[in-house]
Amino acid sequence: MKYQVMIIGGGPAGYTAAEAAGKAGLSVVLFEKQNLGGVCLNEGCIPTKTLLYSAKTYDGAKHASKYAVNVPEVSFDLSKIIARKSKVVRKLVLGVKGKLTSNNVTIVTGEAQIIDKNTVRCGEETYEGDNLIICTGSETFIPPIAGIQAVDYWTHRDALDNKELPASLAIVGGGVIGMEFASFFNSLGVQVTVIEMLDEILGGMDKELSALLRAEYAKRGIRFLLSTKVVSLSQSEEGAVVAYENAEGAGSVVAEKLLMSVGRRPVSKGFGLENLGLQLTERGNVAVDNKMQTSVPGVYVCGDLTGFSLLAHTAVREAEVAVHAILGKEDTMSYRAIPGVVYTNPEIAGVGQTEESLLAKGIPYHAVKLPMAYSGRFVAENEGVNGVCKILIGEDKTILGAHVLGNPASEIITLAGMAVELKLTTTEWKKIVFPHPTVAEIFREGL
Amino acid sequence: MKYQVMIIGGGPAGYTAAEAAGKAGLSVVLFEKQNLGGVCLNEGCIPTKTLLYSAKTYDGAKHASKYAVNVPEVSFDLSKIIARKSKVVRKLVLGVKGKLTSNNVTIVTGEAQIIDKNTVRCGEETYEGDNLIICTGSETFIPPIAGIQAVDYWTHRDALDNKELPASLAIVGGGVIGMEFASFFNSLGVQVTVIEMLDEILGGMDKELSALLRAEYAKRGIRFLLSTKVVSLSQSEEGAVVAYENAEGAGSVVAEKLLMSVGRRPVSKGFGLENLGLQLTERGNVAVDNKMQTSVPGVYVCGDLTGFSLLAHTAVREAEVAVHAILGKEDTMSYRAIPGVVYTNPEIAGVGQTEESLLAKGIPYHAVKLPMAYSGRFVAENEGVNGVCKILIGEDKTILGAHVLGNPASEIITLAGMAVELKLTTTEWKKIVFPHPTVAEIFREGL
Repeated sequence: MKYQVMIIGGGPAGYTAAEAAGKAGLSVVLFEKQNLGGVCLNEGCIPTKTLLYSAKTYDGAKHASKYAVNVPEVSFDLSKIIARKSKVVRKLVLGVKGKLTSNNVTIVTGEAQIIDKNTVRCGEETYEGDNLIICTGSETFIPPIAGIQAVDYWTHRDALDNKELPASLAIVGGGVIGMEFASFFNSLGVQVTVIEMLDEILGGMDKELSALLRAEYAKRGIRFLLSTKVVSLSQSEEGAVVAYENAEGAGSVVAEKLLMSVGRRPVSKGFGLENLGLQLTERGNVAVDNKMQTSVPGVYVCGDLTGFSLLAHTAVREAEVAVHAILGKEDTMSYRAIPGVVYTNPEIAGVGQTEESLLAKGIPYHAVKLPMAYSGRFVAENEGVNGVCKILIGEDKTILGAHVLGNPASEIITLAGMAVELKLTTTEWKKIVFPHPTVAEIFREGL
Repeated sequence: MKYQVMIIGGGPAGYTAAEAAGKAGLSVVLFEKQNLGGVCLNEGCIPTKTLLYSAKTYDGAKHASKYAVNVPEVSFDLSKIIARKSKVVRKLVLGVKGKLTSNNVTIVTGEAQIIDKNTVRCGEETYEGDNLIICTGSETFIPPIAGIQAVDYWTHRDALDNKELPASLAIVGGGVIGMEFASFFNSLGVQVTVIEMLDEILGGMDKELSALLRAEYAKRGIRFLLSTKVVSLSQSEEGAVVAYENAEGAGSVVAEKLLMSVGRRPVSKGFGLENLGLQLTERGNVAVDNKMQTSVPGVYVCGDLTGFSLLAHTAVREAEVAVHAILGKEDTMSYRAIPGVVYTNPEIAGVGQTEESLLAKGIPYHAVKLPMAYSGRFVAENEGVNGVCKILIGEDKTILGAHVLGNPASEIITLAGMAVELKLTTTEWKKIVFPHPTVAEIFREGL
């Protein structure tokens, strides 16, 4: 069997590449060892957002009196929340499958092994192809902390399917995944402690907004230990014991459950990547050009495996660029305006440069900071809730970045993303008419 | 007292012009006869959205079980809903006032009278100015239907302050205002009948999506009478009696209350506009150029008085253009991408051309139509809810318009607005990275 495109991995990069190549009339085979949709759809972006929406509904009912709606009693059914999550995932996985088959993509379930750049083996079969797109994604990284073997910890995967609420939860790692689960379990009444090695949660997001979000969750009862190193883990009768050290000395957190969310790392082993002899970057990732092509012509890498951003939407765009390269269509990958979103409640989202990245690069900028209350709709729909919008403007008046704390940051951040990617100046962006009243108007207000 | 800029009317056009001119260092006087913020802030956009959010919270609690959240009992307190609305309005009016005073705008409360292009009288005082910006807005139009005098009808203003829920409500006029109130009162359990002269509600919005929204509200119990002409009104013991005629013959609707929302018209009388001798358009509105200047140099008209779109955000942009003209800054008004939003639940929003407008103009186009379920986040957050996204693409592959039925249409429509205004092609728009998972991704999915 010979194909024009062979794709390893059926996550956002893989299924996007497969659909795009299939739609363009290329013959495509896609190898997926588990479930179409990858981590993102099956145990990442989508299931977490489904759970978080139940938590948001619960919070909304609990605080309905802010809007003169009386809800004397509210409870939730965790096993039903989990069941609904699984239903949503199944529906979307079927959707992905449908899109692939309708574009004539051959889907092979099994562990693919790269023999050489034109040959992949899966099970008993050998497949030949002109081009190879590798999209194996990433996996949870479990650090070698003393005692880790002895502790019955959760990864995000366990947390997603857990049907019995613990009384308390320690979360090691206050990044996006850690904070989304912290938000979820905090909403449902679990005593949450977040232990973060860096001096702020959500490393990579705007630091000031991250601190504001942290303060909000601290008010809601989450305990944060920042600049704190976990030195050992153990299991006691009360649950997991996390021993830590920080500037105040040594201490420990005991919690019924422990979620390990320190990070993820590219999956580069177990499928014959080494047989290709690809050039690596200094950091050890596969080197690619701005068309996602590796040092070996016809071999492309997209998604988390490149180590660039570990985000589904980056992967999607990279996959499109790779397929365009194969098709000979002019296109290049730009990382200028990749949005980052944390689906806490309120959400936090950012795109482009942060103040931290601009300072590090020595790029002069001007920051406009507005309370979200400058948006009438935000005031109408967020009783007693604060938020901030920050716009970073370059000396030439172009929009360099924007950061929002406040709902629906996730849905409006791409407006700033378009401004950053298209290098609009403040004057150009302000010529766009934003509907009134919307939260999105906050950007225009700041220009 | 002599000013560089005199502004009549403190609604979105007026306060935007005043703030912009003041910020640029011009001396500005603003005349407002009632409340800063105008109809939009005091009795339009903002109060309706505040009420609608309470209704949405109520609906959310009632249907929380879809997300495995149990709310055995839910009720609302209409007088508190109204009180909160008034509080939100007060807060935002203060915000507008603060922005004006901090930009050194002189605010004069009273009815202004234009004497000539450089002279305005208000009360006992006479004001001189170099430039005049007229932003008197619009008012509810009550059609001369037989019996209208004898009926105790509501305008939107009464509906906003009504603290006792009627059992039934007839709404004459199924446009944006009519439908937003229909949505609000339907959520709160009122039996609503909408009587519309045209063959579809929400004239001007995408017709297909409007019909889908209507079908959804019909399911929820709203009765719609389309292509129906109201011939007379009267008052009976049971309430208002609306006698109508349509293709099926004559009939009548009896409802405890009657809301008249057939439309609005520019306020062009009562403040001396006639003293300026401005050139009018064929339709009788003040003629302006693309810098919002009238036929008399130094006299500008912005907002509803131009009769262009009767939307606050159009007014805001027009005001900016007028001030730029006064400042000698290059800028022109574009109506290419004015979003329209209806804050029903689900929301409907559109920008740019509709299929109807393209067909009428004979412009060839290609329509892409996607169910909102193509967005994973939409599926996660909209259990059992359908929606549609429609993108209209020209022969040269530029985005001509886009229309969305589904939350949060209002917040994401400006993404399409940017594409339309900047004349992006499908390829250019698709190079923008949209965060995953978001509802906004639906646009990208359609490209």
